[in-house]
Amino acid sequence: MRRWNGWGDEAVGMALDDNALAFLARQVGAGRAPQDVSFEAACAGLAPGRLPPHPLVDASARTRLLHALGQSLPDWLRLRYGRVDTAPDGVAFPESGEQVRDLFAFAAAHGAAVIPYGGGTSVAGHLTVPNGGRPVLTIAMGRMRAMLALDPEARLARFGAGVSGPDLEAQLRAHGYTLGHFPQSFEYSTLGGWVATRSSGQQSLRYGRIEGLFAGGRVETPQGPLEIPTFPASSAGIDLREMVLGSEGRLGILTEATVRVSRLPEVEAFHAVFFPGWDAALAAVRALAQGGLPLSMLRLSNAVETSTMLTLAGHTRAVRLLEAWLALRGCRDGKCMLLVGASGARAQARPALRAALGLARRHGGVHAGRGLGERWRRKRFRSVYLRNAAWAHGYAIDTVETALDWPRVTPAMRAIEAAAAAALQGWGERVHAYSHLSHLYPQGASVYSTFVFRLSGSFETDLARWRRLKDGVSDAIVQAGGTISHQHGVGLDHAPWLGHEKGALGLGAMAALFRHFDPDGRMNPGKLVAP
Amino acid sequence: MRRWNGWGDEAVGMALDDNALAFLARQVGAGRAPQDVSFEAACAGLAPGRLPPHPLVDASARTRLLHALGQSLPDWLRLRYGRVDTAPDGVAFPESGEQVRDLFAFAAAHGAAVIPYGGGTSVAGHLTVPNGGRPVLTIAMGRMRAMLALDPEARLARFGAGVSGPDLEAQLRAHGYTLGHFPQSFEYSTLGGWVATRSSGQQSLRYGRIEGLFAGGRVETPQGPLEIPTFPASSAGIDLREMVLGSEGRLGILTEATVRVSRLPEVEAFHAVFFPGWDAALAAVRALAQGGLPLSMLRLSNAVETSTMLTLAGHTRAVRLLEAWLALRGCRDGKCMLLVGASGARAQARPALRAALGLARRHGGVHAGRGLGERWRRKRFRSVYLRNAAWAHGYAIDTVETALDWPRVTPAMRAIEAAAAAALQGWGERVHAYSHLSHLYPQGASVYSTFVFRLSGSFETDLARWRRLKDGVSDAIVQAGGTISHQHGVGLDHAPWLGHEKGALGLGAMAALFRHFDPDGRMNPGKLVAP
Repeated sequence: MRRWNGWGDEAVGMALDDNALAFLARQVGAGRAPQDVSFEAACAGLAPGRLPPHPLVDASARTRLLHALGQSLPDWLRLRYGRVDTAPDGVAFPESGEQVRDLFAFAAAHGAAVIPYGGGTSVAGHLTVPNGGRPVLTIAMGRMRAMLALDPEARLARFGAGVSGPDLEAQLRAHGYTLGHFPQSFEYSTLGGWVATRSSGQQSLRYGRIEGLFAGGRVETPQGPLEIPTFPASSAGIDLREMVLGSEGRLGILTEATVRVSRLPEVEAFHAVFFPGWDAALAAVRALAQGGLPLSMLRLSNAVETSTMLTLAGHTRAVRLLEAWLALRGCRDGKCMLLVGASGARAQARPALRAALGLARRHGGVHAGRGLGERWRRKRFRSVYLRNAAWAHGYAIDTVETALDWPRVTPAMRAIEAAAAAALQGWGERVHAYSHLSHLYPQGASVYSTFVFRLSGSFETDLARWRRLKDGVSDAIVQAGGTISHQHGVGLDHAPWLGHEKGALGLGAMAALFRHFDPDGRMNPGKLVAP
Repeated sequence: MRRWNGWGDEAVGMALDDNALAFLARQVGAGRAPQDVSFEAACAGLAPGRLPPHPLVDASARTRLLHALGQSLPDWLRLRYGRVDTAPDGVAFPESGEQVRDLFAFAAAHGAAVIPYGGGTSVAGHLTVPNGGRPVLTIAMGRMRAMLALDPEARLARFGAGVSGPDLEAQLRAHGYTLGHFPQSFEYSTLGGWVATRSSGQQSLRYGRIEGLFAGGRVETPQGPLEIPTFPASSAGIDLREMVLGSEGRLGILTEATVRVSRLPEVEAFHAVFFPGWDAALAAVRALAQGGLPLSMLRLSNAVETSTMLTLAGHTRAVRLLEAWLALRGCRDGKCMLLVGASGARAQARPALRAALGLARRHGGVHAGRGLGERWRRKRFRSVYLRNAAWAHGYAIDTVETALDWPRVTPAMRAIEAAAAAALQGWGERVHAYSHLSHLYPQGASVYSTFVFRLSGSFETDLARWRRLKDGVSDAIVQAGGTISHQHGVGLDHAPWLGHEKGALGLGAMAALFRHFDPDGRMNPGKLVAP
């Protein structure tokens, strides 16, 4: 069963061994887990729902609580400390566009706002219910999850947009296809959510971002349905898909989406390469990203992340042997790990991988074989469970991510980590910060930074610590010339920084679009831009 | 010098030999050229300008005439027959964003509409001056053409958006880079025009469409400047670039644009392959487009285009030898020519080309070597001069283009050609129609159709013939499920069909955006959507 106050399935654990705990204690001090409230207590804390009954709406406290929040750290704090101040007044589970329209009419009749809910994996406050004011109807899309059509000739598949990653891939795999979109949240996040937040998957190097995969679909808006037909390309005015991508529920609900699919790859392999230091590693990945080799993944950890990951992984003895072997080859304290993936037809993927490893070697890289890469592949959706394990030992884990042109990548990474390190000094607390480049482009890269710090045991203190940390690193991102999000979206949490890149005129343009589709400001109010 | 009433440089001619003329006479009847009016007579026909003097504005009849129209067939008819009913009241040539803002203020002060002018190559009526009503100021961007910055690390180059194709490539080539954007209009069209109309170049298979090349820039809008920063990717809400792409001058003028550039290719080669018939050729190009080979161009002519091109090319004896050689190999009457291009690093381009030719062979293709491909490369911007030559013999040439998912490609091509063939029956005239697939995608292809028909010598008759033909083929396009334009844009000429793909709600969304940036409806009114 899915955890109600943490990540993922309750059956999946990820333990931190003594060595890992000692490492964390050295970095930020010994942790002490706060006492989580029970599900029942959290339910009991909810104010009663304010919507009249409707056959499609579940107004039970249990269901309302399970759809009240996402996976951001403040969301976790609210759940763990039992401080869920706001929840939807009801949650609906439509099975058709007609039911969605029916629910819009119900919301309109009762002056309710509407929050679209996909997999509940937002880490930016997309699902937060506004305080006070009108009632809120959350529309959960999980029952609209069937593959509705598959066109093998055009390689297009149409899905109910509430389909989750595993369900989508399973339905495609049965026919020999894949979408190839694997965000970290893959287990729960949905196609509709990916589109609404401009998601990016771990193998975007091969398959592209969701922007490129989303070919068309149907959006139910308060002003009526918007059907976006599929074309391979078009110069016919503004691209309507681009109004939906990143709209974060502000203009309606994507109910059906057609995506561009690929044949399942013949072969797929992930290899690890270590570099003696960051600069050599960066030069290598830039050359790889600009070299046009048909790779499927590049993921470069900086030195702190490399050593943190090797330590937290367990397998102390194996890691010690690996590090000794690497040290002999010049990769010591500042070493950085690169994962290189290639997927596709044998005749293309193998030469590409060979060429990539050769290029890495010419930049001082030491090929460590397939073991670590395959381990990454097996655990690719498991590392996020680390948040649960860390919490159980009294540590909070949070992340931010951005993307920047190449000259800004390293300065931004350093500035983000420095801002994090300084953020909690007022409380006498340290932050352990590390980063990787998760998506590489000819133009630049995304920087994905992780922060570990201690929980205080007090909701107010921990929320204030998060706020201070979030402000510091977000300021650092925009000052370094980065976008406030490369793959998580804006929601509530990133909205204060959005004006940096959009300007007032650009924010206004987004608002003008939303007003057109949703003149009453009913849809996910307050997210992205002021309502 | 540039022709004022036709395509291109006066020094460049393209003759039709006797064999070609006999072919055209067989297809649509013998032609008789109408009498073109002189430049002076056309100037004398303009009504006086209605704007007061401004230091940046040239209100001479000569300059106003030269900026009154684009290159669509109705534009040609107006120029050739001396029926330029409307022209801008003045033409400005700003050299900075400040001057553009100054011109906006001037236009506002005098209630004038503003038409942005790039290279004047629109074939969809983007530049048409509205009839009557307020005065019109055309802002010609040709003086803002410098490379303003080059970032070799991020492979970004910033240009004044009025830069033409050759000027842009020359400035990049000096540093070893290319944009790789080569639309047929390359000689004159501009970066700003490409962005505003969502242009696609002949080698988009390698370099992508302008949507992917345009990384950011600055738009002067009536509500102030919109600066769009560059990121490799972002999930921060709606992408502002996508509001500019395809906006066709309706929200402001792109004054500076940053584009993603590539290293000049080490090698580049174009080869020709002939197929015995359309179905085999189509299967081959679909497999090529979906195979992910790093090719730079695929261009497949149908049987009528193949024979037309071979006939119009001159070189009768060489063509006869080629056809005899092809006939021995099974490519006879219905044969279709495919051009395959590969560009890039030697180590990637050569194997890709080899693999492509192998795949084509397995689909029944006959490799005809590099000669025809190289000839295409040398003449790639020359074939459009054929319009001048045809006119001189009494023939009009017009084109339409669309893009469709694979299952719709062949039916659409047939429907477009059938609609063209039937269009002028009321006048007892025939239309010679032929097509090629100009851009190939895993999802589908663009269909580019050319029509040749006789001129009548009467402006009204020829305009009516064009109207009838345009209506027929445009209806065929949208009924077949195609977009009304893959690369030419919408302008005035395609606007009646835009609702088919956007719906009323989508059209309204575009209009809402334009109103936000341009509340007075000053910018290029009437283009794309009703003002």
